Amino acid sequence: MKLTKEQKQEILDQQSQQNTTKRVTSSELEKILYEAMPVLDHGFIRVVDYMGDDTSIVQSARVSYGKGTKKVSTDSGLIKYLMRHRHSTPFEMCEIKYHVKLPIFIARQWIRHRTANVNEYSARYSILDKEFYLPSSEHLAAQSKSNRQGRGDLIEGDQAKKILDLLKNDAERTYNNYEMMLNERFDGSTIDENKKGLARELARMNLTLNTYTQWYWKTDLLNLLNFLSLRADNHAQYEIRAYANIMLDTVKKWVPIAYEAFMDYRVGGMEVSAKGKLVIQKLVKGEKCDYENSKLSKREWNELMESFGFTEKMI
Amino acid sequence: MKLTKEQKQEILDQQSQQNTTKRVTSSELEKILYEAMPVLDHGFIRVVDYMGDDTSIVQSARVSYGKGTKKVSTDSGLIKYLMRHRHSTPFEMCEIKYHVKLPIFIARQWIRHRTANVNEYSARYSILDKEFYLPSSEHLAAQSKSNRQGRGDLIEGDQAKKILDLLKNDAERTYNNYEMMLNERFDGSTIDENKKGLARELARMNLTLNTYTQWYWKTDLLNLLNFLSLRADNHAQYEIRAYANIMLDTVKKWVPIAYEAFMDYRVGGMEVSAKGKLVIQKLVKGEKCDYENSKLSKREWNELMESFGFTEKMI
Amino acid sequence: MKLTKEQKQEILDQQSQQNTTKRVTSSELEKILYEAMPVLDHGFIRVVDYMGDDTSIVQSARVSYGKGTKKVSTDSGLIKYLMRHRHSTPFEMCEIKYHVKLPIFIARQWIRHRTANVNEYSARYSILDKEFYLPSSEHLAAQSKSNRQGRGDLIEGDQAKKILDLLKNDAERTYNNYEMMLNERFDGSTIDENKKGLARELARMNLTLNTYTQWYWKTDLLNLLNFLSLRADNHAQYEIRAYANIMLDTVKKWVPIAYEAFMDYRVGGMEVSAKGKLVIQKLVKGEKCDYENSKLSKREWNELMESFGFTEKMI
Amino acid sequence: MKLTKEQKQEILDQQSQQNTTKRVTSSELEKILYEAMPVLDHGFIRVVDYMGDDTSIVQSARVSYGKGTKKVSTDSGLIKYLMRHRHSTPFEMCEIKYHVKLPIFIARQWIRHRTANVNEYSARYSILDKEFYLPSSEHLAAQSKSNRQGRGDLIEGDQAKKILDLLKNDAERTYNNYEMMLNERFDGSTIDENKKGLARELARMNLTLNTYTQWYWKTDLLNLLNFLSLRADNHAQYEIRAYANIMLDTVKKWVPIAYEAFMDYRVGGMEVSAKGKLVIQKLVKGEKCDYENSKLSKREWNELMESFGFTEKMI
Repeated sequence: MKLTKEQKQEILDQQSQQNTTKRVTSSELEKILYEAMPVLDHGFIRVVDYMGDDTSIVQSARVSYGKGTKKVSTDSGLIKYLMRHRHSTPFEMCEIKYHVKLPIFIARQWIRHRTANVNEYSARYSILDKEFYLPSSEHLAAQSKSNRQGRGDLIEGDQAKKILDLLKNDAERTYNNYEMMLNERFDGSTIDENKKGLARELARMNLTLNTYTQWYWKTDLLNLLNFLSLRADNHAQYEIRAYANIMLDTVKKWVPIAYEAFMDYRVGGMEVSAKGKLVIQKLVKGEKCDYENSKLSKREWNELMESFGFTEKMI
Repeated sequence: MKLTKEQKQEILDQQSQQNTTKRVTSSELEKILYEAMPVLDHGFIRVVDYMGDDTSIVQSARVSYGKGTKKVSTDSGLIKYLMRHRHSTPFEMCEIKYHVKLPIFIARQWIRHRTANVNEYSARYSILDKEFYLPSSEHLAAQSKSNRQGRGDLIEGDQAKKILDLLKNDAERTYNNYEMMLNERFDGSTIDENKKGLARELARMNLTLNTYTQWYWKTDLLNLLNFLSLRADNHAQYEIRAYANIMLDTVKKWVPIAYEAFMDYRVGGMEVSAKGKLVIQKLVKGEKCDYENSKLSKREWNELMESFGFTEKMI
Repeated sequence: MKLTKEQKQEILDQQSQQNTTKRVTSSELEKILYEAMPVLDHGFIRVVDYMGDDTSIVQSARVSYGKGTKKVSTDSGLIKYLMRHRHSTPFEMCEIKYHVKLPIFIARQWIRHRTANVNEYSARYSILDKEFYLPSSEHLAAQSKSNRQGRGDLIEGDQAKKILDLLKNDAERTYNNYEMMLNERFDGSTIDENKKGLARELARMNLTLNTYTQWYWKTDLLNLLNFLSLRADNHAQYEIRAYANIMLDTVKKWVPIAYEAFMDYRVGGMEVSAKGKLVIQKLVKGEKCDYENSKLSKREWNELMESFGFTEKMI
Repeated sequence: MKLTKEQKQEILDQQSQQNTTKRVTSSELEKILYEAMPVLDHGFIRVVDYMGDDTSIVQSARVSYGKGTKKVSTDSGLIKYLMRHRHSTPFEMCEIKYHVKLPIFIARQWIRHRTANVNEYSARYSILDKEFYLPSSEHLAAQSKSNRQGRGDLIEGDQAKKILDLLKNDAERTYNNYEMMLNERFDGSTIDENKKGLARELARMNLTLNTYTQWYWKTDLLNLLNFLSLRADNHAQYEIRAYANIMLDTVKKWVPIAYEAFMDYRVGGMEVSAKGKLVIQKLVKGEKCDYENSKLSKREWNELMESFGFTEKMI
């Protein structure tokens, strides 16, 4: 992650603010406010604003005049109860805003979460930074054999080197040609005074999908947790998970009680179907129960056994 | 508006907070934070939290690393430009939360604005306050003759008195019977120790629609302005306009530049149709133009003439 | 449920349509299209339009040129897979529209589901029907002792009779006074030619919350299933469950495969938390596990035991 | 636009359906249902399903039991009134679904319209088609001097040829390397039996932004019109306008009355600010009014004069 001297100064200026407010504040989150936390090779994520804390969830659940909080243990019990029973609206009462730098192919996954506010850097209006994502060697994996949308074994040696060279060369070549067509370099200098530059809204089409873009992204806590339950999950593509994991950490700093409930009921929890429940009941009672008499599909049987750690029963 | 001693104290406790934050603050809005501003006879509205200010609009429009602001005049020009061209997403980057006490029939209009977060006081769970809205005499109007969903002349004298008596008596009677069915009074005292009380989720059905309820309501600036452009408009029902007008004032304190642009382009502005444009063009050129050759419906012709103040041309 | 002769004729006219279309149709749903199915004492629900069927889910999941369907068993497997893994967007590709007549206090619960399109009968513009909900004796229950938002034992005998009389009399009285204030009866006749009527937008505030209203309500299959998983659940208030159960039946006719997956994975299924998972694992392995060493709250322990049917372990 | 023999057959199969339905149908839209209408060099757009017609708008606005329609002229008057006064909810009662093939950089603009349902072809799961957008010579324009996000003069001659060559070569090269990394060609054949292929979710990052993708996109009429008012506008990028113009035509076939109202009040209409209104009033009254005493910014003055066709007053 490279920041220009000017960008660093702008961030420092924000961080040196000492404003007085009657609003609730989250002291742990304040500590990292505005900080550019590196993600992947050139990306970052920054918390740039927030509203509310754990007490805001309690306050709105109780529709109270004041803070609405009682003892910490009572508040914590209420938040857990709300999470367990999917009483979701009180979690919408907290809001957070991030500034994110990320590769375009990841931005395209991310934007599928619709209940959020977004302002993206406009490549119709401005020239994109000359930065593109290249996977590090421990993430250069082959197509999975078992999961049509996942990764399998690592690719190593010569083939890995060749792939990384292709990615790097193609990104650089297309970016250079982007500048050529614009007749302008990223630093603003003109290439050929006698020529016009192609419209930016057209030239951008030559860039590869690993080019970095950036945006402001704002959402409420409920929708953030929905995002994280999908994107911090190990079925998510590694590159978006890298962002999600850091965001999960910001949630922990911001609303520690809600975070704990989320980890217990969502991330660590699981859903069992009606048929799956019958299987578990038989297993607890010590009745005979195997795949053949379970009425589950093979895939579902294995998912159930795996999630409870009964891997010896997988077929 | 009545607040209990305990409620007043809770509000004072909130107002006495002096927290330090690196977030941007809106100094004028801070001054009235948490304050219960009276609306109608028993209602109120309070700003209980907010996020961002005018600079947040500019910052996200520019996707900047720092505050994103330049000179005040430049920022103001950008915000006006965004408002004029309905570049709406930067206005979503500011968020506000209100605590509102309001009659149920107004809550039913309000909730039609879907892009907001809401937690309402639950009458399945708790007993509603013994408070109902009664219009003051200057708002007791007859059905309009010309507008099927509006008010006409005032109703005065005996008829007014009789109507107010009916409203008052029916609200009181149904509330008393609500307590009777619950076998419990609003203050929590039991009426008859030997009886069970009807379930709250059932008993509430006996209340009239002017009973007050309350909720936490949170939305972003864009959706708040959409709400206000409809509900602070003089076609809106007076009772919701009373809330909208106070909210408009909180917008002025919070984001004064966006407020000014909103008043100029939305509230004070108007939409002219393609056919209406032809009429205006002819009028400016001094060409003959009247209803007959305008191709407008009578109603639309009159709306156009009225909004430009050419009332002598109305038919 | 009363329908006027004119309303019955309008419904018959709709049902007698025989249009030809290239769109997919759902033959079972066509059979009940437009039919007013009675709910509660005066309410109804009608399916008035729909778009798509089970094959539409498959088609969009595959982004196919044609129907996208293969063998029925393959399609069914895909839909179950999508449901199990909460791949939700393909379920948004089916849409349905209902016409519903329902008591206002239920409409207020219903409208909390925001991702839907709604047009409600306007009491600013028109006079509401003289119909109000009165619970039948088998639903007249006392407040639950254990669940602050639920029902407990039935109320019977004299107390039941008295409550029903209060509900009936108050609804009738307030409705009669509503007509009086309007100076107009429901049938359109004027009460006193020498008087003005109070504006409708004001007079309505005198009505009780069990007065019936009606609306058109349109949503996609995903959001409909979310609605049903909350409102057809036995924690939902009986009066909204009565609607949800009939809607569940329309889903079965419309998209039978998605319905079956929904019943297995959502309605009949359950969520187990990380801590709950540990409990189940111990129970299956025959290890000692009781409330004391479970780290669950008492409430959560009991919910878990109950949902697996291990009621002998509840405390 | 190339379709495989199999794709053509699938479309023909859909078009040959002759289903009977009690739902309303739109006869003009039925004629083009499923047809792949070419857009740009390799894109297309197809209407694959719809719900409702003009009468559905009227029906829900009236919350009627039957069709809700009266005379055509009355219905048309109501729809125009709803459009003029932005009574938007009845327009949400019609729904349409498109299958679209479009370049990725256009998909990224399109997806910013959040109130829609989308299923995109997954490049984590499948290999993208070997097709990329190349502008035709009449759309190869230089960056505008006056509008930072628009196009100016055409680029012609050698420079044009060079740009098109760059775009073509870079797209082909990066696509070939995409296949190389996948170790699999678009037709499914393996390149080197002794090698693993890079995971699809990674390999796709090498593609350029003009590569075609495809999706199912479903929305209601209100949100479709909002989309079209922005994207069929001449400030929109040409490439998305090409899609919007064809969609506008499908709206005309589907809901001709709503289409006409939209063209009059939205597309052909304009918004005048409070200050702009004062200018127009003076001009009509023949009072002196020029830029200096208008209180408008220069830019806004020119926009106002231009939109009314008073171009001689522009400065």
